[in-house]
Amino acid sequence: MRQPFTRELADLLERGRDRQLRLAVTGLSRAGKTAFLTSLIDQLRHAGLEARLDLLPAAREGRLLGARRVEQQDLGVPRFPLDRALAALDAEPPQWPAPTRGISELRLVIRYRPRRRGWAGGETRRLTLDLFDYPGEWLLDLPLLSHDFASWSRSQAFTGERGALFADWREAVARLDPAAPVDEGRLASLAERYAEGLRAAREAGFSDLQPGRFLLPGDLEGAPVLQFFPLPSLDDADPATLAGLPEDSLYATLARRFRYYQQHIVRPFYREHFRRFDRQIVLVDVLGALNAGPERFEDLARSLSRLMQSFDYGRRSLLTRLFAPRIDRLAIAATKADHVTPEQHPRLTGLLEALLAEPLKDLRFADVPVRALSLAAIRATEAREVDHQGRRHPALRGTTLDGEPALLFPGEVPARLPDADFWRRQGFAFPAFRPRPRGDDALPHIRLDAALDWLIGDKLT
Amino acid sequence: MRQPFTRELADLLERGRDRQLRLAVTGLSRAGKTAFLTSLIDQLRHAGLEARLDLLPAAREGRLLGARRVEQQDLGVPRFPLDRALAALDAEPPQWPAPTRGISELRLVIRYRPRRRGWAGGETRRLTLDLFDYPGEWLLDLPLLSHDFASWSRSQAFTGERGALFADWREAVARLDPAAPVDEGRLASLAERYAEGLRAAREAGFSDLQPGRFLLPGDLEGAPVLQFFPLPSLDDADPATLAGLPEDSLYATLARRFRYYQQHIVRPFYREHFRRFDRQIVLVDVLGALNAGPERFEDLARSLSRLMQSFDYGRRSLLTRLFAPRIDRLAIAATKADHVTPEQHPRLTGLLEALLAEPLKDLRFADVPVRALSLAAIRATEAREVDHQGRRHPALRGTTLDGEPALLFPGEVPARLPDADFWRRQGFAFPAFRPRPRGDDALPHIRLDAALDWLIGDKLT
Repeated sequence: MRQPFTRELADLLERGRDRQLRLAVTGLSRAGKTAFLTSLIDQLRHAGLEARLDLLPAAREGRLLGARRVEQQDLGVPRFPLDRALAALDAEPPQWPAPTRGISELRLVIRYRPRRRGWAGGETRRLTLDLFDYPGEWLLDLPLLSHDFASWSRSQAFTGERGALFADWREAVARLDPAAPVDEGRLASLAERYAEGLRAAREAGFSDLQPGRFLLPGDLEGAPVLQFFPLPSLDDADPATLAGLPEDSLYATLARRFRYYQQHIVRPFYREHFRRFDRQIVLVDVLGALNAGPERFEDLARSLSRLMQSFDYGRRSLLTRLFAPRIDRLAIAATKADHVTPEQHPRLTGLLEALLAEPLKDLRFADVPVRALSLAAIRATEAREVDHQGRRHPALRGTTLDGEPALLFPGEVPARLPDADFWRRQGFAFPAFRPRPRGDDALPHIRLDAALDWLIGDKLT
Repeated sequence: MRQPFTRELADLLERGRDRQLRLAVTGLSRAGKTAFLTSLIDQLRHAGLEARLDLLPAAREGRLLGARRVEQQDLGVPRFPLDRALAALDAEPPQWPAPTRGISELRLVIRYRPRRRGWAGGETRRLTLDLFDYPGEWLLDLPLLSHDFASWSRSQAFTGERGALFADWREAVARLDPAAPVDEGRLASLAERYAEGLRAAREAGFSDLQPGRFLLPGDLEGAPVLQFFPLPSLDDADPATLAGLPEDSLYATLARRFRYYQQHIVRPFYREHFRRFDRQIVLVDVLGALNAGPERFEDLARSLSRLMQSFDYGRRSLLTRLFAPRIDRLAIAATKADHVTPEQHPRLTGLLEALLAEPLKDLRFADVPVRALSLAAIRATEAREVDHQGRRHPALRGTTLDGEPALLFPGEVPARLPDADFWRRQGFAFPAFRPRPRGDDALPHIRLDAALDWLIGDKLT
C-alpha cells in the first residue's frame, strides 16, 4: 500500500506549507461517526453559500469559499460512503446512515481566503483535508501490545452481566489442559464460542471487548489469527513451564496466534494509518451509556480510558516508543446533544469530562492539546418550551424512530459521575429520534462548527 | 504476512527432504473446488481404514496409514471450511457445500510406509500436505499485467449476449471525454454500473470477466482501486496525447487505478501465494458449459486459455520473468463426471483436451508435466442399465436438486469441439443431482484417486 516516492515527497512539501491536514474520526460503535463525517463534509461543501458555521471564524468572516471532493491518496482504502449516507437521510422517511465497517477515507480540497490579504488582494488558498473514519474498537487493542499471551489472559475478566454472556465458552474452556495437544477443529469451535460471547456483549451495549478485530473480521473470517481466546486456567502457571510446552500444545498454539494478531493486525493499523493522522476527534455516546445502566456506563469508562492510551504520547507511552505518532490536537465529543434540552448541554460536557478525568490528566501532562465538547452532528430535534402548572419548562420536539411526533423533556443529565443513588432513581430514558427531512441547505447541527474550529480552524487563517 | 526466518528455514529443509508439498486447487466458479477439496481430505483421513483409493498405489498397497489436520503455516489466511462442507453434506436432505470466497488453506500430515522398507522394517514417514483453494478468476487477471490501461481498454470486447449485459454502462460511457476532469461521485457510479455488468455476466454463466476482483471485493468494497473500467473511446487516441492529459482527467484517473490494481492486487497474489505452489489442479465444469450453449462454451474456452497462461513457464512467459513460479505438475479435470453415464467419460476427457488443445500444446512445449482427466469428487449418482425396446441402455440413478428420484440417460457428450450443427440439434440437458446421504465410509467418488496419484503419488513411494 506504499505510494511512489515522488508522491510522498509532494505530500510532504504540501504539508510543510500547512496546506494538507489528515483528520481522523473515531468512536465506539453507534457513537455517530458516519453522521459526524457526513455532516462535516456537507457543511464544508455548502460553506460558500448557506454556511451554518458561525463558530468557525473563516466561515463567519466569509472567507471560506467552499470544498470539493477529489481523489483520495490511498486507492486501496474504501472511500467514505458519503453518497450512501446522504441517500439514507433523503429517504422517505429519513433514516440514519448505515454504520461504516473498518477504515474509510475521503479527500476534500477547501478553498478559502487568508485573513491577511497578500499584495494581490483577492488571493485564495487551498487546504487539502483528508478525512478518515475507523472503528474505535481498533484502539482498544493497543493495550494488547504490552502483553504476552499469559498476562493478557490474566487481564481479561468475565464477571457480572458481561461475564454471563460468555458462560457457554467459559464452561467449555474451564477444564482445558494448556499442555495437551490441540485439535484444529475443536480449537476453531471454541474460538467461535468466544467470538459469540464478544458479539453478544457488544449487542448488549458493552464496548470493552478484546480482541477488537474478532467483531469485524472482514477478509480474515475463518483465519487462525482470529481463532484464539484467553486461557483462564493460567493464573497459577509457572512461566518457565509454559514456555517449555511443545509447539502443538494448546498453550503454545494460542500464544502463537496471539503474537500473530499483535504483529499482523494491531501493529499494521498504527504503522500504516494511525501514525499519519494530524488531528483526531473521538466521539462518545454518553447518553446511550446512561440509558443502559451502571454496568454499561462503567464499561464505557473503562473502554474510554483504554482507548485514550493511543493519544497519550507521554514519555513512557507504548505508542511513542513504537511509532512516533504525530497527532497534535485532539477533540473528544459527547454526541447526540440534540437528544437533551439545551440547558443540559453544559452538564453533558461536564459528565464527559468527569468520565475522562484520568485520561485527560495524562494527556494534559503529556502536553497533548485536547478539548472536550458536546455536539449533535445532525440535529434531529428542535428546542421548545412548554407550560406546566403555570411555569415554563424546556422541551424537545422531534419524531421518534417509530414515526411518532413527540414533545417531551427527556430528563436531566447528571453533571458528575452518577452514584449508586442516581442509578437507583434511574430518572432516565432518552428517546431516539429520527433525522428530519433534509432541504437544500446544509444539515442542521449543534456545535459541529465549534469542533471544526478546534480541528481545522487554525489552518484557515 | 511474512513468517519469521527460522520458520521459513525449517520449511525449506522439510521441503528439501521431499516431506512437504503445496497443492493448489482452482477452477472457475461452480467448477466444484469445495467438493473436490472436501472429498480429497475425507479420502486421506479415511485412508487407513476404508480407502476408496485403488488408483493410488500407496493406498492400494496398504502403505497409506492416515492423515491428520494440523495448524496451517500462514495464520492470516482463512482455513478451508472443511467442517462446514461436511455439515452441508450431512444435512437432511444433503446439500452441496457453499462455495468458498477468496483463498483458503488447510494443512494435513499424511503418515505412510515407504515402498522399500529401511533397516527397521516398520518405518513410517510423514508428508506434510498444504492444500490451497483459490478462485480461478484471479488467474484471469494475469493477462492484465501485460497491458497498459489503453491497450487493456482496447482488448475488452462487448459483443453478443455478453455485451448486452453491459448495455447500461456502455451507454453511460460512450460519450465520455477522456480529457475532461473527473467527478469522484460520478466515477464511482459509472464503475458500479460496470461491476453490475460483470456480475450479471457471471450470473448468466460467462467467465471471461476482467478485472476478476470486482466480483469478490471483500475488504476492498468501495475502494477506488476497484472503481475503474475500460474506456471504449480510446481506439483512435494518440498515445502521446493521452500521456499528456492532466492528473485529474478521466483518462489519467482510470489509468492510475488500473496500475494500482496491477501492482496491489494482481502481483501480490502471484508473489505471496502462486509462486509457492508445488502442484496444481484446475477444475472445469465442461458439462455446465455444454448445457449453457455455444456463446458460453466459447467463453469458457477463451477463459481457460487465459487461465492456462499462468502455468505456461516457457521462456517468453510473463510469469517466469516476474515470479519464477515452480509448479512442477499440473492436472486439469472435467468435474461432475457422475452426471453422465460411464461410457461417456472418455468422451468427456477428450472434449476437455480439445477445449484446451492450444494451451496444452504450449504447456507441453514448455515442458510442464500436465494431465487431463475427468472425475467426480463426490459421486451423486449410480450407473444403471435399463431395457428399452429390447436393448440395454446405460442410465443414471440419482435424486434431482428438487428431491425427485430420477433414472435417466442424460445424453451423449461430443468427443470433439461441438460445431454449429451440434448446437442446432442441442441434444443436451444434463440435470443437476444432489449428493447422497453420507455414511461412515469415505465419500464415494469417480477417479479422485487417479488425480491424487498424479498430484501426490510420487511423494508416497
